[in-house]
Amino acid sequence: MPDPGARGPSVPAPPSEPAGTVPDVPTPSAPDLPIPAAAFALAAMPRPPVAHPFPPSTGTPPAPPSEPAAVPTAARVLGGPTGLGTTALSLAGSGAVAPSEPASVSEPVIVSAPAIAPGPQRVLGGPSGLGTASLSLASPASPAPTSHRPSPEPAPAPPAEGQAVPGLYHHPVPEPDPVRVEEVSRRIKRWAEDEVRLYPEEWEGQFDGFSIGRYMVGCHPDAPTVDHLMIAARLMVAENAVDDCYCEDHGGSPVGLGGRLLLAHTALDPLHTTQEYAPAWEESLGSDPPRRAYRSAMDYFVRMATPSQADRFRHDMARLHLGYLAEAAWAETDHDPEVWEYLAMRQFNNFRPCPTITDTVGGYELPADLHARPEMQRVIALAGNATTIVNDLYSYTKELASPGKHLNLPVVLAERRQLSERDAYLKAVEIHNELMHSFEAAAAELAAHCPLPSVVRFLKGVAAWVDGNHDWHRTNTYRYSLPDFW
Amino acid sequence: MPDPGARGPSVPAPPSEPAGTVPDVPTPSAPDLPIPAAAFALAAMPRPPVAHPFPPSTGTPPAPPSEPAAVPTAARVLGGPTGLGTTALSLAGSGAVAPSEPASVSEPVIVSAPAIAPGPQRVLGGPSGLGTASLSLASPASPAPTSHRPSPEPAPAPPAEGQAVPGLYHHPVPEPDPVRVEEVSRRIKRWAEDEVRLYPEEWEGQFDGFSIGRYMVGCHPDAPTVDHLMIAARLMVAENAVDDCYCEDHGGSPVGLGGRLLLAHTALDPLHTTQEYAPAWEESLGSDPPRRAYRSAMDYFVRMATPSQADRFRHDMARLHLGYLAEAAWAETDHDPEVWEYLAMRQFNNFRPCPTITDTVGGYELPADLHARPEMQRVIALAGNATTIVNDLYSYTKELASPGKHLNLPVVLAERRQLSERDAYLKAVEIHNELMHSFEAAAAELAAHCPLPSVVRFLKGVAAWVDGNHDWHRTNTYRYSLPDFW
Repeated sequence: MPDPGARGPSVPAPPSEPAGTVPDVPTPSAPDLPIPAAAFALAAMPRPPVAHPFPPSTGTPPAPPSEPAAVPTAARVLGGPTGLGTTALSLAGSGAVAPSEPASVSEPVIVSAPAIAPGPQRVLGGPSGLGTASLSLASPASPAPTSHRPSPEPAPAPPAEGQAVPGLYHHPVPEPDPVRVEEVSRRIKRWAEDEVRLYPEEWEGQFDGFSIGRYMVGCHPDAPTVDHLMIAARLMVAENAVDDCYCEDHGGSPVGLGGRLLLAHTALDPLHTTQEYAPAWEESLGSDPPRRAYRSAMDYFVRMATPSQADRFRHDMARLHLGYLAEAAWAETDHDPEVWEYLAMRQFNNFRPCPTITDTVGGYELPADLHARPEMQRVIALAGNATTIVNDLYSYTKELASPGKHLNLPVVLAERRQLSERDAYLKAVEIHNELMHSFEAAAAELAAHCPLPSVVRFLKGVAAWVDGNHDWHRTNTYRYSLPDFW
Repeated sequence: MPDPGARGPSVPAPPSEPAGTVPDVPTPSAPDLPIPAAAFALAAMPRPPVAHPFPPSTGTPPAPPSEPAAVPTAARVLGGPTGLGTTALSLAGSGAVAPSEPASVSEPVIVSAPAIAPGPQRVLGGPSGLGTASLSLASPASPAPTSHRPSPEPAPAPPAEGQAVPGLYHHPVPEPDPVRVEEVSRRIKRWAEDEVRLYPEEWEGQFDGFSIGRYMVGCHPDAPTVDHLMIAARLMVAENAVDDCYCEDHGGSPVGLGGRLLLAHTALDPLHTTQEYAPAWEESLGSDPPRRAYRSAMDYFVRMATPSQADRFRHDMARLHLGYLAEAAWAETDHDPEVWEYLAMRQFNNFRPCPTITDTVGGYELPADLHARPEMQRVIALAGNATTIVNDLYSYTKELASPGKHLNLPVVLAERRQLSERDAYLKAVEIHNELMHSFEAAAAELAAHCPLPSVVRFLKGVAAWVDGNHDWHRTNTYRYSLPDFW
């Protein structure tokens, strides 16, 4: 994330954003996709997800397979359970079908995909048979007017570069709709520069290199409109601004962080105080780029979210800030956490606030009582933990190259388990894979026991976010590169 | 709060607590009280709450009135609004009727109070006419079997000692049912000593001096059973244990606090991790008294709460921990907060998690979607802020006498507004009073616009907590004494 740097007066209320070159579908509130419960009769749908063979943690590492070579194989991930979990998730649209198990592949559920689907929906390198049809499960629910869409059969976008971590259990995703990517990229830059004055000119390259458009389009394939995608994009940029400017790379520090984060948190969870002191607080929200970004992104969000969705988001952001503060405390006191301590911290300093807005971005609501169920909380936590370890793995070399010590799972494992850097990294991959399997097993079980449309769609949305997040890390070669362990 | 001190192995799952000398009502799920919407037609119910005349912030202070002398006067709190707010809240049971305004007092709503109401319900020193009848609004919803209750008309408990802060806008409460107080006191001590080994023997006096039984019975007059009260009592004790042992008086420190609090938070919001690392985390929850207390109190709570109520509580606890961490950051960096900054921090380092469980303790549920409404969030925040400033005012001399610098509102006002200690204290009273008026106005408005039984009862529950909290501070002369400013 770029360093916002410049400070200025408070930001005016955000203007309503005019439609860009890709006007939104008229009424964005998308109905729940008509996915029958059978879509989650997962035991009958053994479409194994894509995975590279897991490299042994000792011995000669295998040559890294070229991405996305392993798609059509009935690859089983080593070390994970073979129950519900492994068969569970093409939820988010992995179209990979295992040719070796055709007899047990039930007819995939095909939701009427509009002929004018917005952009290519082809799985990179995967087959184009039955499997790809299931992708439309995650495609926009409302067909766009033809006049605003590219031609019905655009040429597929070229596969993005970037290599997956060898052995990492993951699902390839369709190349994000390039038209949407471009439009989100255009609008988010305008928001960052004109509405919240997020960064000085010299950081423009870093902002572009973050590829927020690709990130959010890839993570929210079911967003009904670009306006919905912008909700996610603004929040993601704001979260990164706070992290960078308050905590990390761009002027951040663990010293005094608790005070800064709390005051920033009031941009999300407002202060209710006396008439005399309210104006100074209001003014503070415009006093630096992170707070301007939080406030503006939240303003947009609450206008599209239900109160319960806003409450859920505030809670997840409080968790995130607690996670930042634990990490900061350990940095200040030179505490080397145990592996379990690190994993606990990382459940809070976590992507969780991003997948859990999937329903708002999708134009529907997972009811609060269903969100609060322990089974759903477990699914969300496991998904967040898996995505966050993905970040640890892809940002490993970047963090090693940064000044100071950056905690991440391979580093902690190397220290606490006395492993070589390579073995620690491979062990972290193993931990990630178990978290992914646990997530998928828990999601499949919940979908089977509670096949309500909003639950099923939410679970698919979280899974889509997990997969999109991995794909963004894999393809963001501007930010990330893999270590030389294979 | 006593210092738990002793450490030990992990705690076994809490046993189900046998009924004590006051067995619980058989089926504790209390139906909503049949309070008609008319109960909140507050414009027609100008029953001014009790308040001492507000002392001028300059000039000769008036002699402190003896508590509770000012009850029957039609006192108006200076500096507060005279709209909805001032007429709003005898919600929680202030029985004080202003004799000077008899013409405008509408017939108070009397909810069928069982003849065998558990304990005296008389307002201390107040009239026994129309006003006191409204008290039964906050009385237990379920009549107790006569065989388990004291005689129908026990002698009123003697008024507790302790003086209210002069000029503080507040509502007297009925003397808490002494039978319940005794039973909660007995059970909570057994829990603290036998189940979570909270403190070493030498701190027993401090534990008793906290008067948790009186506190919780006073704050939850509508709890259907002692089991329900115990939910609140355990959480309150656990919260104080964490605050004292991690943050403040008994071994606490701002240094490294973020790590400790996050790990403690996982006792409320569990870790979901791999099979290899889950056992170490599980074990950690038994490794010190604060975590043992959090875990056990939460275990009991989630068994009585709905998932949404548990989610709400976790969110409020995350807020609380963020507040602790902001305060700690300021202590570490010697930051003298602006008044508005202090008020923002104090909205998080706040009693909020206590009143917001009023529905669980009352045996009903405020639905999640109603809880999340912005109007309800505002009511809750204002109530929490008022109660928290009450704590600042009553603990002022205690904190001045403690080693180190303790931030509280009078101290911050004195520094930032360059006021004398006395004037700063009186200004803090003024701020409290405005917060209370704002709370009451917001609650009355919400009740008028959304007169659903669960909303109305929740608002009354929060108001009861606010009043009970004040009364506990006023009467806890073991902990608190007022400064000599009058």
